[in-house]
Amino acid sequence: MTTPQRQLNLNIGINTTGYGGRAWKVRSGSAADITDPAYYLRLAQLAHRGRFDALFLSDHPALMRDSGQRPLHTLDPLILLTFLAGQVPDIGLVATISTTYNSPYNLARRAQSIDVLTGGRLVVNLVSSFNPAVAANFGNEPLPPREVRYARAIEFVDVAKQLWSSWDPAESGEVPPDHFWDASAAHEIAHEGRFFSVRGPLNVPWGPQGHPVLAQAGASDRGIDFAALHGEIIYANVLSRPAGRAFGERLRNRARALGRDPAGIRIVPGVVPVVAESREAALRKHEILSGTGSEDGLLRRFAIESGLDLATFDPDAPLDPARFVPDQNRQWAVGMALGLSELLTHETLTPRQAVRRSEGHHRLVLGTPEDVADQLIDLWQDGTVDGYTVQPLVAPDDISLFVDKVIPVLQDRGVFRREYAGDTVRERYGLPFPARSPARVAQPHEKAS
Amino acid sequence: MTTPQRQLNLNIGINTTGYGGRAWKVRSGSAADITDPAYYLRLAQLAHRGRFDALFLSDHPALMRDSGQRPLHTLDPLILLTFLAGQVPDIGLVATISTTYNSPYNLARRAQSIDVLTGGRLVVNLVSSFNPAVAANFGNEPLPPREVRYARAIEFVDVAKQLWSSWDPAESGEVPPDHFWDASAAHEIAHEGRFFSVRGPLNVPWGPQGHPVLAQAGASDRGIDFAALHGEIIYANVLSRPAGRAFGERLRNRARALGRDPAGIRIVPGVVPVVAESREAALRKHEILSGTGSEDGLLRRFAIESGLDLATFDPDAPLDPARFVPDQNRQWAVGMALGLSELLTHETLTPRQAVRRSEGHHRLVLGTPEDVADQLIDLWQDGTVDGYTVQPLVAPDDISLFVDKVIPVLQDRGVFRREYAGDTVRERYGLPFPARSPARVAQPHEKAS
Repeated sequence: MTTPQRQLNLNIGINTTGYGGRAWKVRSGSAADITDPAYYLRLAQLAHRGRFDALFLSDHPALMRDSGQRPLHTLDPLILLTFLAGQVPDIGLVATISTTYNSPYNLARRAQSIDVLTGGRLVVNLVSSFNPAVAANFGNEPLPPREVRYARAIEFVDVAKQLWSSWDPAESGEVPPDHFWDASAAHEIAHEGRFFSVRGPLNVPWGPQGHPVLAQAGASDRGIDFAALHGEIIYANVLSRPAGRAFGERLRNRARALGRDPAGIRIVPGVVPVVAESREAALRKHEILSGTGSEDGLLRRFAIESGLDLATFDPDAPLDPARFVPDQNRQWAVGMALGLSELLTHETLTPRQAVRRSEGHHRLVLGTPEDVADQLIDLWQDGTVDGYTVQPLVAPDDISLFVDKVIPVLQDRGVFRREYAGDTVRERYGLPFPARSPARVAQPHEKAS
Repeated sequence: MTTPQRQLNLNIGINTTGYGGRAWKVRSGSAADITDPAYYLRLAQLAHRGRFDALFLSDHPALMRDSGQRPLHTLDPLILLTFLAGQVPDIGLVATISTTYNSPYNLARRAQSIDVLTGGRLVVNLVSSFNPAVAANFGNEPLPPREVRYARAIEFVDVAKQLWSSWDPAESGEVPPDHFWDASAAHEIAHEGRFFSVRGPLNVPWGPQGHPVLAQAGASDRGIDFAALHGEIIYANVLSRPAGRAFGERLRNRARALGRDPAGIRIVPGVVPVVAESREAALRKHEILSGTGSEDGLLRRFAIESGLDLATFDPDAPLDPARFVPDQNRQWAVGMALGLSELLTHETLTPRQAVRRSEGHHRLVLGTPEDVADQLIDLWQDGTVDGYTVQPLVAPDDISLFVDKVIPVLQDRGVFRREYAGDTVRERYGLPFPARSPARVAQPHEKAS
C-alpha cells in the first residue's frame, strides 16, 4: 500500500476567498464567488493540476457577520465536496463535520455514501464544536464542558466505526438463487452507551477504504486523546521543529499507551505560504494579505491579540513564554493558541520575529518559491511532519501561484508526485487499511456466526 | 414562469434495483449495482434522455434485511443526488429526508447548498419517519404519536423557511470599499418554538428557487394539514379519477382554510408502469415482476395483505370498502393503505379486478406503450393530477423501456417536453417563486431596517 519512496502529502484549503480574513481586498474575482459552483470547480481543477492529495474545507455551521471579512463558511462541506467529486477525478476530499450537532447514524451513512461513490476519496475531519454562535443554531443548550464534548466525540466515533463495520459484503456466503443477497453479512451493533443508543446495521456497506480516513484537529489534552484513539490525519499547528517533535512524540506515546500503533498516524499541520519573487517582496505581501498593511500593523495586531499593553510594548524584547500558555478550560479552540505557546517554549523570540512565524495561527512559510519549498521540505524530511494542509490567504490567486511555482520545485526535488498513483486517499497517505470494528455489546438476539 | 401550454410533469424513481421488492430476479445487472456510481450515472443519463423533470429517491435510514428482496435504501439521497447533479445537467433531484431525525439548521443548509450549486434543481421530500427500525438507529426513544410528529414537522419546515429567508444578498445596500459584503442583508430569526430554538441566520443565501421546492407524501389527516401548509409537490396514492378528485379537493380546501393559495400545489402521485407489446403480455409481466408469478399468486398476496381468510375468500365477489379504512392512529404510513380504501369508496371492485389496479400501493398502468400513455394522460388532462412519479418495478430495464417506448408517445401527443426549458425544477412545475418567510419572533436586538 505504501509508496516505496516517502513522499510529501499536501492538502489544500479551499474555503471561500481563502484563509486570510481580510485578504480578499487584493484577490481577483467577485464577492459572489463564495457560492458560485464554477468558482469552486476552478479551484478543484487547479488543485488537481497541482496533484494535491485532497481539498480541505474547514467548517462552522453559522454565518460570520463581520462585514470587513468574507464569510469563511457557507456551502455545506459534505455537499460541496460531493458535487466537486463528480466533476474532478482523483483528488481526495477533507470534509469538516461536527460530532456535537450530527447523529452518528446520519454522519456515518453520509460519509460512507461519499466514500463508496468516489471510490475511496473521503477524509472526515471531526470536530467537537465549541462556538456559542453555532450552539445557538442547534437548540441553544448551554455548551457542555470540553470533557463532556470529547467524551461524546469519542463515543461518537466508536459508534461510527461499529456502523461502518456492520455490513461487509465480502463476508457473504453463497447466495441462494431466490435471494438477492446474504443478509447475514450485515449485523446489528446494538450500541448502548453514555450518549448514544444505536442498533444498526448501517445501510451502506464497508467500502473501498474500509471507512473514510479520519482527520482530527484538537490539541488540548482531551483533543490529543481523541487523536491518539481515532485520528489518522492530524491537522495541527506546528510552528517549529522542536515544537513539532514534541507534539508528535506526545501524540504517539499517547496512542501507544492506549494500545494503538502510531504507524497509522500522519501529522499534516496547517501552513500559510506567502510566495513572491523575493523575500523582501514576500514580507510586503504578507503585510498586505494579513490586512495589517505594515510591520507596525502586524506588531499592533500581535499586541492586541496577546493582551499586551500597546503603550509599554517593546517589539524587540524577548517574549515570556509563560504568558502564552492557553487555559485548557476555555471554550474556544485550545489548539489555535497552543501553537505560539509551544513555539516560545523552545525558542526565544521577540514580537518582531514572532509575527513572521505564523499567520492565522498556522506556520507562515514566506519567500521565493524555492524558499517556500525549502521550508516545507525542512520539517518533513526528518519526519517532524508528514505533510501539510496548505492554507492560501487568497483564493484563487495563491492557489495558482503555489501550483505554478512551488509544486514544480517540490517535484524537481523528488519529494512530491507528478501524477496521481493509487486509488484512494488512504493509499496515498500510506495509511493502513482499517480492521473492522467489533460491536462492543453482547447481542444475544443475533445468532452466533 | 409557467409554460404557455400545460405540460405533464414526470419524476422517475431510481432507488436501487427498482420499486418491485422481488422484481430483481428478472432485471439485467448484478447485485453490486445498488452501490455502484456508474450504475446510478447510467440511470440518471437515461432519465435525462427521457426528459424527466426529476430523479426521485425515497428513503429510510435503516437497512432492510429481507434477503428475498433487494435493500431499497442504501446511499444517502442528498449525497447520491448531489454526486449525480455534478455529472448530468438539467434534471431535477427529489431527495427524501426525515424531519424527525435531522436538525432544521443542518437540513436547511445542506438542501440550500445543493440548490445553489445546481442552479435550482432540488426538491426536498419531507417525511416524518414512522418506522421503529429507523427509531432504533437514532436513540431508541419511543416513537412519538403521529400528532406530535406532525406538529414537529410543521414547526421544522416553518424554521427551515425562516432560515432560507434569513440572508438575501438582493437586500444588500451599497458595500463600502473596505467591506466584503453588506452583513445587514442577513438577519437572525431568533426562533423559539415548542420543538426548536434556532437563532440563525443561515450561512447559505436565498437561492435560484428562493428555497428548494417542497414535496410531501403524507395522506393522513395530519399529513394533509402539513401538505396544505407547506407542500408544493404532493406525492400521493391516487388509484382512480373519483379518488383523485376527492383527494385534490380536500387538499386544496384545507390549503384555502389555512390561508394558502392552492395554485402553488401540484399533485404528482406514484404510478407503476408495466409496459409490453400487448395487454396480455403486460398482465403476465405484472405477475412476474410482482414476485407472485400468476394471477392466483396476486390474489393470494391480496388476501394475506388484507387479512382475508384464504379458505373462504371469493376472488370474484365485490369487496366491502368499510374493511379497508386505515386506522389514523397506527404507526405506519396511513397514505399507503388509504389508496385502496379510497378506490373502493368510489368504485365496486372484486379482488380479481383490484389486484390489477395497484402495485406496491401505487396505481398500476399496464399495457402497450399507447395504453400506458393513454392512462397517464387520462387522469392528467382534466386536472385530477398534474403529473406522476413513475416507479419502475425493475431498474434499469423498465426505465429504458419507458424512455424508449412511452415518452415518445407522450411527446407525439404534445403533452410532454422534447427538450428541457427553464432553469429550475420550480419553473418546469410552474410553481410560484416563494415569498421570503418573515421571522415569527420579535427581534429587539436587531435594528429596524
